[in-house]
Amino acid sequence: MHGFKFYEKVTGAFRDRSFLSKVLIIGTVSGGGLVALSDSGAFQRKNGAEECKKKKVVVLGTGWAGTSFLKNLKDKSYEVQVVSPRNYFAFTPLLPSVTNGTIEARSIVEPVRNIMRKKGMEVQFKEAECYKIDPDNRKIHCRTNGSSNLGGKEEFALDYDILVVAMGARANTFNTPGVVEHAHFLKEVEDAQKIRRTVIDCFERASLPSLTDEERKRILHFVVVGGGPTGVEFAAELHDLVVEDLPKLYPAVKDFVKITLLEAGDNILSMFDKRITTFAENKFQRDGIDLKMGSMVVKVSDKEISTKDRVTGQLSSIPYGMVVWSTGIGTRPVITDFMKQIGQANRRLLATDEWLRVEGYDNVYALGDCATINQRKVMEDISVIFSKADKNNTGKLNLKDFKEVVKDICERYPQVELYLKKKQLKTIDALMKNATEDPKKETMELDIEKFTKALSEVDSQMKFLPATAQVAAQEGAYLADCLNRSEQCEKYPEGPLRFRGTGRHRFHPFRYKHLGQFAPLGGEQTAAQLPGDWVSIGHSTQWLWYSVYASKQVSWRTRFLVVSDWGRRFIFGRDSSRI
Amino acid sequence: MHGFKFYEKVTGAFRDRSFLSKVLIIGTVSGGGLVALSDSGAFQRKNGAEECKKKKVVVLGTGWAGTSFLKNLKDKSYEVQVVSPRNYFAFTPLLPSVTNGTIEARSIVEPVRNIMRKKGMEVQFKEAECYKIDPDNRKIHCRTNGSSNLGGKEEFALDYDILVVAMGARANTFNTPGVVEHAHFLKEVEDAQKIRRTVIDCFERASLPSLTDEERKRILHFVVVGGGPTGVEFAAELHDLVVEDLPKLYPAVKDFVKITLLEAGDNILSMFDKRITTFAENKFQRDGIDLKMGSMVVKVSDKEISTKDRVTGQLSSIPYGMVVWSTGIGTRPVITDFMKQIGQANRRLLATDEWLRVEGYDNVYALGDCATINQRKVMEDISVIFSKADKNNTGKLNLKDFKEVVKDICERYPQVELYLKKKQLKTIDALMKNATEDPKKETMELDIEKFTKALSEVDSQMKFLPATAQVAAQEGAYLADCLNRSEQCEKYPEGPLRFRGTGRHRFHPFRYKHLGQFAPLGGEQTAAQLPGDWVSIGHSTQWLWYSVYASKQVSWRTRFLVVSDWGRRFIFGRDSSRI
Repeated sequence: MHGFKFYEKVTGAFRDRSFLSKVLIIGTVSGGGLVALSDSGAFQRKNGAEECKKKKVVVLGTGWAGTSFLKNLKDKSYEVQVVSPRNYFAFTPLLPSVTNGTIEARSIVEPVRNIMRKKGMEVQFKEAECYKIDPDNRKIHCRTNGSSNLGGKEEFALDYDILVVAMGARANTFNTPGVVEHAHFLKEVEDAQKIRRTVIDCFERASLPSLTDEERKRILHFVVVGGGPTGVEFAAELHDLVVEDLPKLYPAVKDFVKITLLEAGDNILSMFDKRITTFAENKFQRDGIDLKMGSMVVKVSDKEISTKDRVTGQLSSIPYGMVVWSTGIGTRPVITDFMKQIGQANRRLLATDEWLRVEGYDNVYALGDCATINQRKVMEDISVIFSKADKNNTGKLNLKDFKEVVKDICERYPQVELYLKKKQLKTIDALMKNATEDPKKETMELDIEKFTKALSEVDSQMKFLPATAQVAAQEGAYLADCLNRSEQCEKYPEGPLRFRGTGRHRFHPFRYKHLGQFAPLGGEQTAAQLPGDWVSIGHSTQWLWYSVYASKQVSWRTRFLVVSDWGRRFIFGRDSSRI
Repeated sequence: MHGFKFYEKVTGAFRDRSFLSKVLIIGTVSGGGLVALSDSGAFQRKNGAEECKKKKVVVLGTGWAGTSFLKNLKDKSYEVQVVSPRNYFAFTPLLPSVTNGTIEARSIVEPVRNIMRKKGMEVQFKEAECYKIDPDNRKIHCRTNGSSNLGGKEEFALDYDILVVAMGARANTFNTPGVVEHAHFLKEVEDAQKIRRTVIDCFERASLPSLTDEERKRILHFVVVGGGPTGVEFAAELHDLVVEDLPKLYPAVKDFVKITLLEAGDNILSMFDKRITTFAENKFQRDGIDLKMGSMVVKVSDKEISTKDRVTGQLSSIPYGMVVWSTGIGTRPVITDFMKQIGQANRRLLATDEWLRVEGYDNVYALGDCATINQRKVMEDISVIFSKADKNNTGKLNLKDFKEVVKDICERYPQVELYLKKKQLKTIDALMKNATEDPKKETMELDIEKFTKALSEVDSQMKFLPATAQVAAQEGAYLADCLNRSEQCEKYPEGPLRFRGTGRHRFHPFRYKHLGQFAPLGGEQTAAQLPGDWVSIGHSTQWLWYSVYASKQVSWRTRFLVVSDWGRRFIFGRDSSRI
């Protein structure tokens, strides 16, 4: 059996190369997503004691963040309610594979109720959409999508003690006219299924006898907007479908097929290492995928997409058959509304502190694509940091004083460490030493002015986390771990010093651990950017990709299905039935 | 591995019991369908010579009849065009399994283009719906369903030399108000997918906090209308889903679930042996499925279904969450329109002669659920039969005369044989002998009066063929075989004598060979009615069912998928994600 050989090869790859096992935990990209759901061990510390009797936790969303939170929450003193319009978790990094039939939609979804059932704690699920968060009354308002048979739209409200907002994002259209009406997105499972049907529709339509060749050319012109990881992977998968499988079934029209990738920037995969970008661009050119850099889409009509050249400003119109829009994420209306209520109207994304708490609401957490961590700047807090370090109020900081708080500073302000790394300094002492004229480390002293000067540039190293599955999953696991040990940490805080208050923070702040990114490029080739700027490209990386994605599945059922889908594709090719 | 053990069991069942292999070709029921697509060998005779250069054959439909025709057509002198709104063949007997997630929709479909590709002859496919047949101009008019992106609805016409109408039927609502708006059907793959989503919707909706228990009860009340093979199998599969799998995920609402089966007649599965009917009724009662016999549905509203008792005339209303309507088939509008054009306006189904030709149009064939064979009555032709037999025009028929035409009579009028069987007479001679007073067979003579009397009752044995997959597949194979040998049979006709003309018919008339029927009853039990009134019920019959359905798959791909779906269900249960 071919299928079994395939599995042997995968496992064999691990036996033969021990380094592979080490990088098994590297994440995987798609939707820019990195996968670390089942490996939240990084945040698994000792189990805390139980206290609060049946605190009501409401989780909004069943994506990477929500599901990861749910999987890792263990404290039985919580009563959990999950609200989401989707009663399943979807392994979104495989969505591009669903669009071309390599993977079946059902193979990448796992019912949330299955995940809940295995927990052995009180969790309830409601299939509904939260349309309003009322943080002052600690309530959320929900609405179902029901047919009239079932009683139409039903509304209800839920109380919460702790709210976990993990509703994800929607596709960002930049308000480009016509995108919502005419383009396909690649956010949900339904989107992927629709794209699959549309590709087949295009081929069937182009095969009709009454069409001109020009119309055939238009209908078989597939345009992908956005050269990020999702757009690139989709273009690559689409190319495999229209080059490997469909020509056999539609020999008469295969010469009309064309794929164009529009990217507003100068490169595709710009967040990856230059080597990967170059390899991808060369491969796409060899494959005949038309890469149009610096093309900004200004309008999409039903048969044409209008672009503007970023440099020359020239406008042009491209006839198309299908457009897939993949240019990043936008905020959902309910989140925008919530932001207005809590005074964040001028922000683009819901901001939280480093403990994932929505500012001003200690019992509301926001994670995943719908939120962003608003890292405090050192410069904002420089005087309180100084006075905290200067315990004796001498107005001077000597090395001993400083050493006592340096760990807390580094934990509270991760940009400090990044700055040191960039400057290739081993410890913060060296930074301090640069700021004083005293050549002897032991006796050096800093006043507030010199202290400020020494740290004046560290904030330049602040980074926003990418909107990936990897970040969302780590945030979910982190938050669950905090809640699991909330009682214990109340008594014995483990976080850094509160510079603007007294005592210590209860928890360590969330710290993202980047495990690497994949960029599948079609034709059984994948690029991977691993931690430490290690780059791997080619067929072997594709096998690594298979292994990682199989291992990262949320259940044995989906793992079995995904692997058997791959096997089926190897043996029988992709299915082209329009269902 | 469980999955592998399962396969071993299946094949083991065949090794252990040789009788099983013998009945492997028995058909299988669902949608009342019997499966004999790959075994059309019964009609495979010698291959004829080629003549007509590239005659244009247009096939309407890709169901059992159309696909079977396509698979069996071998004569390369035809240029074939297939027109259907579905670019795939669906193994409809497994649709009930798709509704509850035992089988995935994609596992039972095979792209028509795949089937065509393997033929190595000129076949083209157009994804479009034929909306008008114009037999006088030998044209069909087609229309596509396209989104505006693709150019909206496109119309085109095709010429034909030979037309094969195999468009199937639609569900018959008997014009009951509200059925089209509120009930689900079980004819197409999309119907099955919609039912699956609706069942999950019902469970999710019933789990919402804002509902009363009465509403929960209504929403979880599943009503099946029609106690035929499809309705019964669906009710059984639904019962397995809501009893085996869903209670684990929806423990809070499982006690509200109820299934009701409404049947207008006195029994479910009335076309089966009494033993099967009784077994099924008892099993359903044990399972808690509410069987309501003699209930005719008079109206369906969005939340209630109104029935009238056939005997007492009493009206009653049943609140429901989902209704599945499965009460037989009705004619598609394009066929009704065609029937008006050719003077069949007063018929319910398109009538053909015994060679599947539409009456009056020698080059238009109709097969499958859209057509019915209008068997000629012996009484209509009695005088021409007599004069044909009475070669010497003596006005009397002696046994020698008679023996010469008896084979042709039996072939042309199959009801004669059925009548003899019913009367337990070995040959037609005996029937003749009864009609004359002469005790000596050799000298007996019949005049037209006695001859008419002898055959006067045979027409009572005329039977319409059931609208099953088995019939459609055999018709498709038969017609393909005729066209393959059309040239040869033109020269050497092989059919019976033309009683109303001269010479012989070119082909043998179509003769249906009933291979048996399955009726799956849930809980891994199936009933089967095999030829010769042999009845088999229970778990072993379920394994037989698995084997037959696996062997009858149209391709190795779907066979692999169906078997692995069964394996997956054994290991992981059914998926309840709402996609």
